[in-house]
Amino acid sequence: MFFASDNWSGVHPAIAASLNQHSQGAVAAYGQSALDRQVAAQFNEVFEREVAVYFVGTGTAANALALSAYNRPGGVVLCHAEAHIHVDECGAPEFFSPGAKLAAVSGAHGLMNSAALASKLAGFDPQFVHGGQPMAISVSQPGEAGTLYSAAALAEISQLAHQHALPLHMDGARFANALVATGLTPAQMTWQAGVDVMSFGGTKNGCWCAEAVVFFNPEQARQFPYIRKRSAQLFSKSRFIAAQFLAYFQNNLWLELAAHSNAMATLLRQAINSSPTSRLAWDGTTNEAFVIVPNAAAERLQAAGSMFYDWPVPDPADFIIQPDERLLRLVTSWSTSQQEIEQFSDFLD
Amino acid sequence: MFFASDNWSGVHPAIAASLNQHSQGAVAAYGQSALDRQVAAQFNEVFEREVAVYFVGTGTAANALALSAYNRPGGVVLCHAEAHIHVDECGAPEFFSPGAKLAAVSGAHGLMNSAALASKLAGFDPQFVHGGQPMAISVSQPGEAGTLYSAAALAEISQLAHQHALPLHMDGARFANALVATGLTPAQMTWQAGVDVMSFGGTKNGCWCAEAVVFFNPEQARQFPYIRKRSAQLFSKSRFIAAQFLAYFQNNLWLELAAHSNAMATLLRQAINSSPTSRLAWDGTTNEAFVIVPNAAAERLQAAGSMFYDWPVPDPADFIIQPDERLLRLVTSWSTSQQEIEQFSDFLD
Amino acid sequence: MFFASDNWSGVHPAIAASLNQHSQGAVAAYGQSALDRQVAAQFNEVFEREVAVYFVGTGTAANALALSAYNRPGGVVLCHAEAHIHVDECGAPEFFSPGAKLAAVSGAHGLMNSAALASKLAGFDPQFVHGGQPMAISVSQPGEAGTLYSAAALAEISQLAHQHALPLHMDGARFANALVATGLTPAQMTWQAGVDVMSFGGTKNGCWCAEAVVFFNPEQARQFPYIRKRSAQLFSKSRFIAAQFLAYFQNNLWLELAAHSNAMATLLRQAINSSPTSRLAWDGTTNEAFVIVPNAAAERLQAAGSMFYDWPVPDPADFIIQPDERLLRLVTSWSTSQQEIEQFSDFLD
Amino acid sequence: MFFASDNWSGVHPAIAASLNQHSQGAVAAYGQSALDRQVAAQFNEVFEREVAVYFVGTGTAANALALSAYNRPGGVVLCHAEAHIHVDECGAPEFFSPGAKLAAVSGAHGLMNSAALASKLAGFDPQFVHGGQPMAISVSQPGEAGTLYSAAALAEISQLAHQHALPLHMDGARFANALVATGLTPAQMTWQAGVDVMSFGGTKNGCWCAEAVVFFNPEQARQFPYIRKRSAQLFSKSRFIAAQFLAYFQNNLWLELAAHSNAMATLLRQAINSSPTSRLAWDGTTNEAFVIVPNAAAERLQAAGSMFYDWPVPDPADFIIQPDERLLRLVTSWSTSQQEIEQFSDFLD
Repeated sequence: MFFASDNWSGVHPAIAASLNQHSQGAVAAYGQSALDRQVAAQFNEVFEREVAVYFVGTGTAANALALSAYNRPGGVVLCHAEAHIHVDECGAPEFFSPGAKLAAVSGAHGLMNSAALASKLAGFDPQFVHGGQPMAISVSQPGEAGTLYSAAALAEISQLAHQHALPLHMDGARFANALVATGLTPAQMTWQAGVDVMSFGGTKNGCWCAEAVVFFNPEQARQFPYIRKRSAQLFSKSRFIAAQFLAYFQNNLWLELAAHSNAMATLLRQAINSSPTSRLAWDGTTNEAFVIVPNAAAERLQAAGSMFYDWPVPDPADFIIQPDERLLRLVTSWSTSQQEIEQFSDFLD
Repeated sequence: MFFASDNWSGVHPAIAASLNQHSQGAVAAYGQSALDRQVAAQFNEVFEREVAVYFVGTGTAANALALSAYNRPGGVVLCHAEAHIHVDECGAPEFFSPGAKLAAVSGAHGLMNSAALASKLAGFDPQFVHGGQPMAISVSQPGEAGTLYSAAALAEISQLAHQHALPLHMDGARFANALVATGLTPAQMTWQAGVDVMSFGGTKNGCWCAEAVVFFNPEQARQFPYIRKRSAQLFSKSRFIAAQFLAYFQNNLWLELAAHSNAMATLLRQAINSSPTSRLAWDGTTNEAFVIVPNAAAERLQAAGSMFYDWPVPDPADFIIQPDERLLRLVTSWSTSQQEIEQFSDFLD
Repeated sequence: MFFASDNWSGVHPAIAASLNQHSQGAVAAYGQSALDRQVAAQFNEVFEREVAVYFVGTGTAANALALSAYNRPGGVVLCHAEAHIHVDECGAPEFFSPGAKLAAVSGAHGLMNSAALASKLAGFDPQFVHGGQPMAISVSQPGEAGTLYSAAALAEISQLAHQHALPLHMDGARFANALVATGLTPAQMTWQAGVDVMSFGGTKNGCWCAEAVVFFNPEQARQFPYIRKRSAQLFSKSRFIAAQFLAYFQNNLWLELAAHSNAMATLLRQAINSSPTSRLAWDGTTNEAFVIVPNAAAERLQAAGSMFYDWPVPDPADFIIQPDERLLRLVTSWSTSQQEIEQFSDFLD
Repeated sequence: MFFASDNWSGVHPAIAASLNQHSQGAVAAYGQSALDRQVAAQFNEVFEREVAVYFVGTGTAANALALSAYNRPGGVVLCHAEAHIHVDECGAPEFFSPGAKLAAVSGAHGLMNSAALASKLAGFDPQFVHGGQPMAISVSQPGEAGTLYSAAALAEISQLAHQHALPLHMDGARFANALVATGLTPAQMTWQAGVDVMSFGGTKNGCWCAEAVVFFNPEQARQFPYIRKRSAQLFSKSRFIAAQFLAYFQNNLWLELAAHSNAMATLLRQAINSSPTSRLAWDGTTNEAFVIVPNAAAERLQAAGSMFYDWPVPDPADFIIQPDERLLRLVTSWSTSQQEIEQFSDFLD
């Protein structure tokens, strides 16, 4: 009953096997090995176009470094108020830029409202330097609330971005879950929808430590090799990331793992919906469920060793929560079992 | 015949096995798992005192973050002119501090001359802010030239550091090689010699990616959890580093691997000394050999697939090199075989 | 009819005269002259205690450098959503810290609500580095909306600050106006109310360019000489700032100028209150008036050469504004004349 | 007998008068006034081409901000080992970039040797990110040793810069002294010699506080308004700088003041040359003299109230200094009198 986060999970055996397989022999360091190149080419295939891909070690690094590639003095990154980059990265995006600001754009359930975004953008005036200048727009797909932008919504946002000559960044820490939930291809969800750069996450979905920054216009990556090195994210034995991605993509393992993870969350959502005392705070289709449960049930579950986190009630909220209830975030992963779900459900009522 | 760097080597089977062994099951993320704690405790044993240890992903991260923990406005880090932090990290120490300066202290063969250091320190005047202020002294053990500070030399430097109320940082990217070469214990080479903080490297000596910042006075680490997170070096599945260190320390594997690596370099140095046409530029006892070979020999070796890097001739140099000769750095590793050395020697003459 | 800002005004003749008087002769540079010391001592008298005072060139510098003296990794400065440091300084506080975040605390009319502040502070958890850590609380006195914290309100905020071991910073760009409006002494409004450091502004109130950072606990200023120099705010002919402050304080000129400025705003507020078509959006006692006027009146005024800025309608607002009305900010200064007010009033209706 | 620095001098009466003249009336803040525009246009005339000019408050700001306009990740600024930006600005250039490195290029008497520069540039390899990348070349004209690059030497350096696609920055803190000493026009000494951006200093030559960054290709200044604001160098009453420059340029006052200052240094150099016990360490033509005097003479002078600074003996030095001698830097200014020189000379022997 571990629903604290998908990064509590371990490593998929196929990925562990790939690591072992590439663990011996002398190969060029710092991303120059044949394996590094092979996996970089795989990213081209995954995205159906030439991309510039750079492995990094953490999702925070992927986000912060991707944004820093577009840094401007007095720069402001527009993102949702609940965005991971804004509330969960200890100021890394600001630090790496360095000195950028993050400005919150409102919107229900973790998704930026495009009208609110347009209004925010309109507020910047190049004749008024005091307010700074926008430098990028960042969306999370899925967002922190487990919800998804539609392809149309992404296109709307990217249109706004490009009208203002801004890049659109996508935080894809759980990108595979988004793909499976929407049925879109990687290309459709990114560059075809106007995304310029993304943080591509593998860690939460079965890898040890495999994250990448992907530029859809390689020209925009020209300074990135220096950015990555001076940011301490150029790994000498870079093949340890490459080997993970190799297995991750093989036979569509990544989509299979995400499908499992999403399916487990769907089971969980169904269980909640069937419960007489609990309910979903809002619905979802990826691997996160946001549920309102009686305090007593939550305590029973914790006493039984279940792990999960309380989630702050959004303000404004479009649901009502009672004083004797808690809002919980439940995250499933590639290694969540149906049995865990059932066990959890049993404790609910 | 791979002597380009010890980071071209792969992963020792015992370390790969440990990774596999800890790859399953849900455990707390971000360094809070039992395994993370167990390995942190191991560091206490290794150093025979309580230390504060923080895993990071790269040696550059370890160095830059360790130094940033002592940052001061207008701060200057004193290090050898050839120090890795000064010439090989793309400005990461300056970037993370942020805005610190590195000032070069002279000394033969990669080792700071303590008189030169004392003179440099004497040049700072708290009444004269224009010149900045010293913020740390950094030594590499072994240094870039494969040479070692004696315990006495370290004590002399740390005494200078502490007279000026400065921390002494040790870049221990090849710390195990230094221990084996000197016969000193980890404690003797660090805090007992006055070292305050070190970069503890495992990657070059048989790990995939296992580096740590070790504070010998845990009080000085108070802000480090935030430094690490905002620097994007807090790994969610931190146990993948812990599992490597676990095997690294078990049965003194780390010292065994370093002993092998040093022994291979000794064979190489002997082979060079026996060669009628080649010679050592300077001697050494760790896993690096700096050799002067005829251009023709170097070309023969490269044609045969041997990998190594040319090394810049120090200025001033205490040896003579002819126009038809090259200065090479040859690095051995835990996976270098005696056969590679013999093959290399055969090509020399 | 110049009500755009008090920084459109010029220099008071007594301050200009002081500059001239101290313009000749060779004196020590970089703040070491007798005049610099004399003026530093005057600050002690003004605040009735020993303070550490550092002249800087701009209000943005005063704010950003004062805050950077308390920088922490992952640090967050808590301030009102409309604070000058948050919306009007092009990211300077974030840049100089560097990498800090500013977090908005809500409250009516530019004043932080202390309950909202307490709740924000409670949200930080030292065990959860992802959210960063608070590093300072900053209040503006008067605030951007021309309103004032009472001594009791300041004490409440400083108590919260100190309970969380945080410094309280005061942006005193219009400090003299606040003193005159409240009748408090400089000591009462600052360190006696728990303020640790302030930005002391003279520029808007009759100087050319005279700003200072004042530490009420000089011990906290230990690193500030280096901060100021590396931030490019140590002026070689520092006496040009000292000479301004000398005259500024002489015979309480500063309070006299602020009293005039406030009185002119009171006249303006009275004129608005008397107007059948205009009204105050909210009341005030300092040198700013926030008024709602018919579009037509605003256009008449602008056609007649009057200068002022529209002000964003706060969200939420406790007043109603019609589509054919505009919210204006009108700022008076030491040089505003009664005649300007009358002329302005004549255009209103 | 004040020879400590030209920034110990006061303000020329014509400049003080201009300040007074423009001290009244309401005008647009933040550099938008008619006077600001008029002075900006004057810069075009001075340089015989359209330039983009930005007033700032200190020479350190001018240098640090100018360089930051060309910032690159892992960027390295090449400058002389004794450059003011390298040894006298408390790390401001590194801080504002932010995170850049300064690399010293050798050369006699404060002037970069172009062969040494070429060799340094050749050492950067775009395939090797570890070493960082060059981002700018910076020369001081005159340099810290009071010496001057010839137009030909500047052209040689700028050619190197542009071959490597790097901007050439000139630190012109004493630009007027250089113009007078060489007889070159402002255009000839800057953009016609390949300079891209300069720090234009007025403070040391009769102003209170008047410095500017001048871009010779205005296109390169596009981000500078934001750089200046977020760096806290946008002055609200910017006309106080404009008014100084207005008088500075009027009737070539600036060149007249510099001519006086240089002439006084020439008298000083002649006095030294006539002295039986003192001598010039190296010759010069601007307003600085570097002299070797007996300890006893230096002490006599200091006892008599003369102010000057000892200068570090360069390493290597092309002159010999005895243990009973001191190397002094003597700086004259627009306000130095012939009588001071004579008085100084009298104390020498």
